[in-house]
Amino acid sequence: MTSAEDPIELHRHLRGKITVTSKVTLTEENLGIVYTPGVGDVSQAIARDPSMARELTGTQNTVAIVTDGTAVLGLGDIGPRAALPVMEGKAAIFSEFAGINAVPICLDTTDSDAIVDTVRYLAPSFGGINLEDISAPRCFEIERRLTAELDIPVFHDDQHGTAIVVLAGLINALDVTGKGTDVKVAISGAGAAGLAIARLLVAYGMTRIRISDSKGVLTPGSESINDNQREVLALSTAGDDWPLGETLIDGADVLIGVSRAGLFTAADVKRMAPDPIVFALANPVPEIMPDEARAGGAVVIATGRSDFPNQINNALVFPGLFRGLLDSGTPQVTTAIKLAVARALAALVDSPGPECIVPSIFDARIVSGIVKAIDACEDEQC
Amino acid sequence: MTSAEDPIELHRHLRGKITVTSKVTLTEENLGIVYTPGVGDVSQAIARDPSMARELTGTQNTVAIVTDGTAVLGLGDIGPRAALPVMEGKAAIFSEFAGINAVPICLDTTDSDAIVDTVRYLAPSFGGINLEDISAPRCFEIERRLTAELDIPVFHDDQHGTAIVVLAGLINALDVTGKGTDVKVAISGAGAAGLAIARLLVAYGMTRIRISDSKGVLTPGSESINDNQREVLALSTAGDDWPLGETLIDGADVLIGVSRAGLFTAADVKRMAPDPIVFALANPVPEIMPDEARAGGAVVIATGRSDFPNQINNALVFPGLFRGLLDSGTPQVTTAIKLAVARALAALVDSPGPECIVPSIFDARIVSGIVKAIDACEDEQC
Repeated sequence: MTSAEDPIELHRHLRGKITVTSKVTLTEENLGIVYTPGVGDVSQAIARDPSMARELTGTQNTVAIVTDGTAVLGLGDIGPRAALPVMEGKAAIFSEFAGINAVPICLDTTDSDAIVDTVRYLAPSFGGINLEDISAPRCFEIERRLTAELDIPVFHDDQHGTAIVVLAGLINALDVTGKGTDVKVAISGAGAAGLAIARLLVAYGMTRIRISDSKGVLTPGSESINDNQREVLALSTAGDDWPLGETLIDGADVLIGVSRAGLFTAADVKRMAPDPIVFALANPVPEIMPDEARAGGAVVIATGRSDFPNQINNALVFPGLFRGLLDSGTPQVTTAIKLAVARALAALVDSPGPECIVPSIFDARIVSGIVKAIDACEDEQC
Repeated sequence: MTSAEDPIELHRHLRGKITVTSKVTLTEENLGIVYTPGVGDVSQAIARDPSMARELTGTQNTVAIVTDGTAVLGLGDIGPRAALPVMEGKAAIFSEFAGINAVPICLDTTDSDAIVDTVRYLAPSFGGINLEDISAPRCFEIERRLTAELDIPVFHDDQHGTAIVVLAGLINALDVTGKGTDVKVAISGAGAAGLAIARLLVAYGMTRIRISDSKGVLTPGSESINDNQREVLALSTAGDDWPLGETLIDGADVLIGVSRAGLFTAADVKRMAPDPIVFALANPVPEIMPDEARAGGAVVIATGRSDFPNQINNALVFPGLFRGLLDSGTPQVTTAIKLAVARALAALVDSPGPECIVPSIFDARIVSGIVKAIDACEDEQC
């Protein structure tokens, strides 16, 4: 590995991955307009009519990436300082793909009330809030309360970004395998991502869903089931014709892993329905490696990794999603928007195939495609 | 006024004065290093040793500009949204003059506890905190508590930035008029700026200070005197040989106005000591206009405005000050640092004269001069 490929060396060289710069080269002539005294006119205009902030400041292009560092990548609770490189990376993606100013805000508290208050207080500088890597179940309450209290969009990417890109990939995977929305879906992982995926699949029409946590398939009688899990289970029709008591993936058409490395084998995949679809999204090591899933008969295989085909990566969604939300002034990310974005992302794949169910992250059509889909939602066409 | 000179038009055109960009052009090759999975190594390194965040992230070059919008320019309590254009302007100056990433954080609360908690929580993403336009007396408590609780520098610019640049100008004004540190100083304005100026002048050796608020010269017996004012009054030796009961500027060598427009006349200046120095810093309309101060006999006249000579502008200080603090990892802005920075700034004026007591804001030597002064402090040479 050369030094350019070593993450530590690259980061030591960069000393931060983002830069804040002035849009205007300051001169003796313009300093008194950009700053005091001229800027006083601008402040007074906003004081008279706060909605003018959208026109006269950068809020409509600025997003806070807020984390408490409790659920970072596959690393878990590593704290706000260790989370910062991830948030800077995300800010770099926001800028490069969608021209959005994104500011990492890594919070030195894990208290839900404190996080809600902090985000509420700093909201006036921002046009949107991207919640990131906050562990369940706090992430649900924090997002719910902030969505209710703020008039700007609040989006927990680990839940909904993941759900949207999984649905997008699944739409094309169903097409490739000739399956419909009556597929039986097995979700391994009942945390933030797993539950959000289940909710969005149900909204799309895929209601036959089993979910497991580390103790096995969730049933209404599971000992450690929590309210969020119970809510999602109530949305599923799996119990009716697909017994919940069985092993997770027996008979499933689709396996979606958002859990941990090496949980499944080729023998497990062989117990799935014919032409199975396997999304093994644990990072960096998936629930089952692609070659083993293939040995088990999987027809479409996706992972979270860039070194295999079909990378299910949130970066396919969040830049375009926030671009669309900010440009249209959409105050909330509704289920209709999530579905529309997933459909738009899926539609960008011209000829879906077993190794091509999502576009490349570098596909230049993604952001505009998502923006159009959000605009159409705003026009109530979705 | 052409559209380029109209602040509202310029701001409508810009839609925000700062941009957040990626330092790296993202490619298929580097995305997995800048972001997941490679960034995981960087996060783990910081999780093992949090001090590595300084080397591997942008904190050492990133400052939060925190305000609650209660004391903005001469406009007062206009709220966080209306304060944002000023903070963006300040961020633009941070970037242009010192290459610092500055992020406006305009808070939707005026509660001291809430402001302290919020800043404490968001501190891990930043290398320094610039408090701005927070009204007195809350600004004193907020700064004191944050300084005690955080291991990064916290600097309330309205107090200390103003005090440093006033002292810098005054050092040269004394030189021009042949006066020494035994000057009698009259400060009009007993808020955040006035009190901080008084404290720094005392630390420099100018202890003969009278201060007035809107009700007249402060004495220990003043009816509405607060604890901060009482503390500053106790530092002054003015009462000993320069009766506090008199009108503020009678017999004063120096008048420093940080109060409001039009408080003084040429006749007032005539009652000062010979060769008086007048700093009339209310913005945009000073306590006395320069021509009137000159008619009263003032030898050195300074204002806060760019259209007169001797502009006392905090932008002379904060970019270089934070550059020096961040580069040296200085955790607190001590009085020794403030004095050293004021001296360094004064020394940049090669030949002080009545119309030349501070350098131009565009003097390219300022930042490096201030950085050197702070480094010398760190080396205990000051």
